[in-house]
Amino acid sequence: MTQKRAEASLEHLRRVFTVPEGDDSTLARIDREISRNLAGFLKDHIVSEEREPAKLERDFMESSMPEDPCFVSEEARFLLEKVVAQSVHTASPAFIGHMTSAIPYFMLPLAKIMIALNQNTVKIETSKAFTPLESQVLGILHRLVYGRSPGFNDGFYRKWIQNRDHALGVFCSGGTVANLTGLWVARNRMLAPREGFAGVSEDGVIAGMRAWGFDHLVVLVSKRGHYSLKKSCDVLGLGKRNLVVVDTINHRIDIADLRRKIAEQKARRAGIIAMVGVAGTTETGHVDPLDEMADVATEHGIHFHVDGAWGAPTLFSERYRPLLKGIERADSVIVDAHKQLYVPVGAGMTLFKDPLALDSVEQTAQYIIRKGSRDLGKHTLEGTRPGMAMLVHSGLHVLGRKGYEMLIDLGIGKAGQFAKIIQASDDFELTTEPELNLLTYRYVPDWARDCLKSASPHAAARINDALSDLTEQVQKTERARGKTFVSRTRFELPQHHSQPCTVFRVVLANPLTTRQILGEILDEQRQIAKDLLDGATGRKLRAACAAAKP
Amino acid sequence: MTQKRAEASLEHLRRVFTVPEGDDSTLARIDREISRNLAGFLKDHIVSEEREPAKLERDFMESSMPEDPCFVSEEARFLLEKVVAQSVHTASPAFIGHMTSAIPYFMLPLAKIMIALNQNTVKIETSKAFTPLESQVLGILHRLVYGRSPGFNDGFYRKWIQNRDHALGVFCSGGTVANLTGLWVARNRMLAPREGFAGVSEDGVIAGMRAWGFDHLVVLVSKRGHYSLKKSCDVLGLGKRNLVVVDTINHRIDIADLRRKIAEQKARRAGIIAMVGVAGTTETGHVDPLDEMADVATEHGIHFHVDGAWGAPTLFSERYRPLLKGIERADSVIVDAHKQLYVPVGAGMTLFKDPLALDSVEQTAQYIIRKGSRDLGKHTLEGTRPGMAMLVHSGLHVLGRKGYEMLIDLGIGKAGQFAKIIQASDDFELTTEPELNLLTYRYVPDWARDCLKSASPHAAARINDALSDLTEQVQKTERARGKTFVSRTRFELPQHHSQPCTVFRVVLANPLTTRQILGEILDEQRQIAKDLLDGATGRKLRAACAAAKP
Repeated sequence: MTQKRAEASLEHLRRVFTVPEGDDSTLARIDREISRNLAGFLKDHIVSEEREPAKLERDFMESSMPEDPCFVSEEARFLLEKVVAQSVHTASPAFIGHMTSAIPYFMLPLAKIMIALNQNTVKIETSKAFTPLESQVLGILHRLVYGRSPGFNDGFYRKWIQNRDHALGVFCSGGTVANLTGLWVARNRMLAPREGFAGVSEDGVIAGMRAWGFDHLVVLVSKRGHYSLKKSCDVLGLGKRNLVVVDTINHRIDIADLRRKIAEQKARRAGIIAMVGVAGTTETGHVDPLDEMADVATEHGIHFHVDGAWGAPTLFSERYRPLLKGIERADSVIVDAHKQLYVPVGAGMTLFKDPLALDSVEQTAQYIIRKGSRDLGKHTLEGTRPGMAMLVHSGLHVLGRKGYEMLIDLGIGKAGQFAKIIQASDDFELTTEPELNLLTYRYVPDWARDCLKSASPHAAARINDALSDLTEQVQKTERARGKTFVSRTRFELPQHHSQPCTVFRVVLANPLTTRQILGEILDEQRQIAKDLLDGATGRKLRAACAAAKP
Repeated sequence: MTQKRAEASLEHLRRVFTVPEGDDSTLARIDREISRNLAGFLKDHIVSEEREPAKLERDFMESSMPEDPCFVSEEARFLLEKVVAQSVHTASPAFIGHMTSAIPYFMLPLAKIMIALNQNTVKIETSKAFTPLESQVLGILHRLVYGRSPGFNDGFYRKWIQNRDHALGVFCSGGTVANLTGLWVARNRMLAPREGFAGVSEDGVIAGMRAWGFDHLVVLVSKRGHYSLKKSCDVLGLGKRNLVVVDTINHRIDIADLRRKIAEQKARRAGIIAMVGVAGTTETGHVDPLDEMADVATEHGIHFHVDGAWGAPTLFSERYRPLLKGIERADSVIVDAHKQLYVPVGAGMTLFKDPLALDSVEQTAQYIIRKGSRDLGKHTLEGTRPGMAMLVHSGLHVLGRKGYEMLIDLGIGKAGQFAKIIQASDDFELTTEPELNLLTYRYVPDWARDCLKSASPHAAARINDALSDLTEQVQKTERARGKTFVSRTRFELPQHHSQPCTVFRVVLANPLTTRQILGEILDEQRQIAKDLLDGATGRKLRAACAAAKP
């Protein structure tokens, strides 16, 4: 008997386009399993233990295009064994290391509808109702941010929410493009058309500087700003060095240094395209003093952009909303729906206080996004885009403001509890106090902590470096074991002579993460650390401590 | 009896995160229906007749965030009635107006797996096997483009396909970001670091021009280039006016004019960042003479970028591959997977011939995409991204090269047949001959065609304007009826004194579109046109014809 093989034929083509997999096919079974028991599917199929990247790669070395087709079941088996099995269990309540978290169950069938419809939101001809739907979602988020300011009332939103010529915001694939869009608009508005100059959009940055009399163009943000801001400065032609980094006090922007840097930039005839406030830094979850920043922005007439990719949904919580006071004075605000709005990767938004702001980046063409059309593509950086707004709409309605408020309150509350557990332990050090639902910490055995206290700055530096090694190795070992996951980062710790140190970083966004799980994570890290301290890492730390003794 | 209402509670939260909808819930039923009979689901739920945009918008005016949660079933019903019903049937074989087409059945359960896993491909810690998987897919496409050139052999691909420091290409959300990425790299490579200058990436465009002694920075493309190139010039700080538009001969770039424009730009001391060849123009599907362009690029040392968003998969076809001769000499090539690789919206790629090219845009940060890591986010314009590469991988394997070849051959063959039907009819005029699977045409009643033949240029212009009105109205009426769909565009027709005319535009990518359906589309358009000719549109056209008589 010969093995059945898939063949390229019109019949094969017709089948893959029109006939679903049979009820007993591998894919159909997976489909049902995910619908009925997502957690079970992930648990059964993801192998927790990490393989070396080099080993992982072996299954993905083939660079030749397969000549012949294969059966869907073959591909499904390959994916299950080689891809799904070796993926990351982002939905696990013990996976608290990154901003990618569990998604509510209903998102899955909804996402399936979205993909089945395969709309393209670049223009109304390929998206119909998805166009006003997306505008509505942007309107709701806009109102969440700005709706308590004078003038941002029912009448304002009635006028603008479905306006055919202007937009309150734009969707995109995620925070990086969202930040880029905010700065793009800020740049184009600052270098606006004037006599003999058609605007930076038409004439470019060089002509723009000449026309407006600037010698440089800069953007300001605290040193905790997200790396996408640097990337945006690169892309926009400003250069990464022209992202002026402002000092922080306890991980929040130092307003005095901000004023100083603005004065310096003005003195060298730099045009300040924007100053960026961070509402929830990526590393520690801190919020810049947005209201004070807004004062500075107003005083100097600078575009105020807020990176709320992570933190903007804190506005759902009446209790924690005040942490973001001043955000309503920002000219632009970004938010990532795949973070604290709990939709699947990837959906970001940039909102603009002024409904005319996006005019500065408007594009048109003959075959698409024609002038006067309602096409969303007129204002987006991307062209073709999926109907992710449908999932955001569903989250907003199924959870409601109160549902999101509970999620926010739970996360911040849990971070506070976790911080207390860490502080109460002898061998963990809380390195940043949580303001939102993020915190950082590290493992410091009690004997090293004692040494650190009395050590000279020079000796302490050596101890901290050894602790950084330890932290990195604990994190890697924990990740490789695959039962729990925290991430790590590295920044200057004010409490340790501002020495750059590696720390564990935790993001508490999964409502299923319990206090017990948090305890288990600390137990596992403690165990790994103790094992490591028996080896070379321990010798290095002990030597550093010994050298610190007077 | 009081109506049951959803309430914000820990229990509600726990449920939406952990418990699937019951088997008899609305969403579960939709889920099953889509799995078992996608075509039936779309047919049953999408209302074909178009509603006025203004009417559509009425369901999406509310800007206040709902306070309380709602049941998933309520949201599902809303979406079915107001969104799904009023969406576009992009999978219909009679929807041949845009580049969004049917997707093979197996893409749906696979997309569900992708979303269930919710990986973030920005870094290996949140994507594991998805990282080498994506690199492999990029390698396969790279080899499809470059694999027949000397040196691009097994050894080359073994060395680079999973290289941890460099990349053969990058994924992104779609063609616009893909083109932007290509030009970003070209810009950064041209304005590379030199003495006293850290490179445009660090120091910006202004310093870059000074350092390299340019007075301007430009990109060249034919006038049929996609609008995203203009947008990219805006974003990159070059300015849209610095996209130098080159004339065309029969919708392909005029090499003589290209040489002329290059000489002009050099004379004014402009740095030429890139020249862009189009492999499948958006409007007519024509392919620039890529090999001749490559000669020019080599001669002048200019970065040669090919926009193959639509046309690059033509390389799968041994028969039509020669149309793209010269693409293997391009420095960068883009391709959209959601177009002729038949994955859902949105996935694009930019491929670079030189594995070191992407070094010019590399980014790193402390908490992510660390130096020396395999993290894909080091080279992508976007940050967080979904695992779309899994769907591309599946398409490449389930269909195989031969399967894609059949799709390409079918589409181009069908376009040729459709062109013949149009040419054989008395009342349709083929306005562009198909080269790939796109063509344009318009309705011209025989009496108007006779007038046009003998008319003076001035009189012909009036007739053509009346015909453009007619075309636009036929297209809008056809769209509103919702049974069939073609798009429209407007460009200069060489056969009509290069007058800009509105024409129907057809994209033949759905393998289920039959000759019979094409005949029905013409019949419907003929009927609509005849009805319109009985009214004001007809009077205008008749008046224009009467005025043309000697």
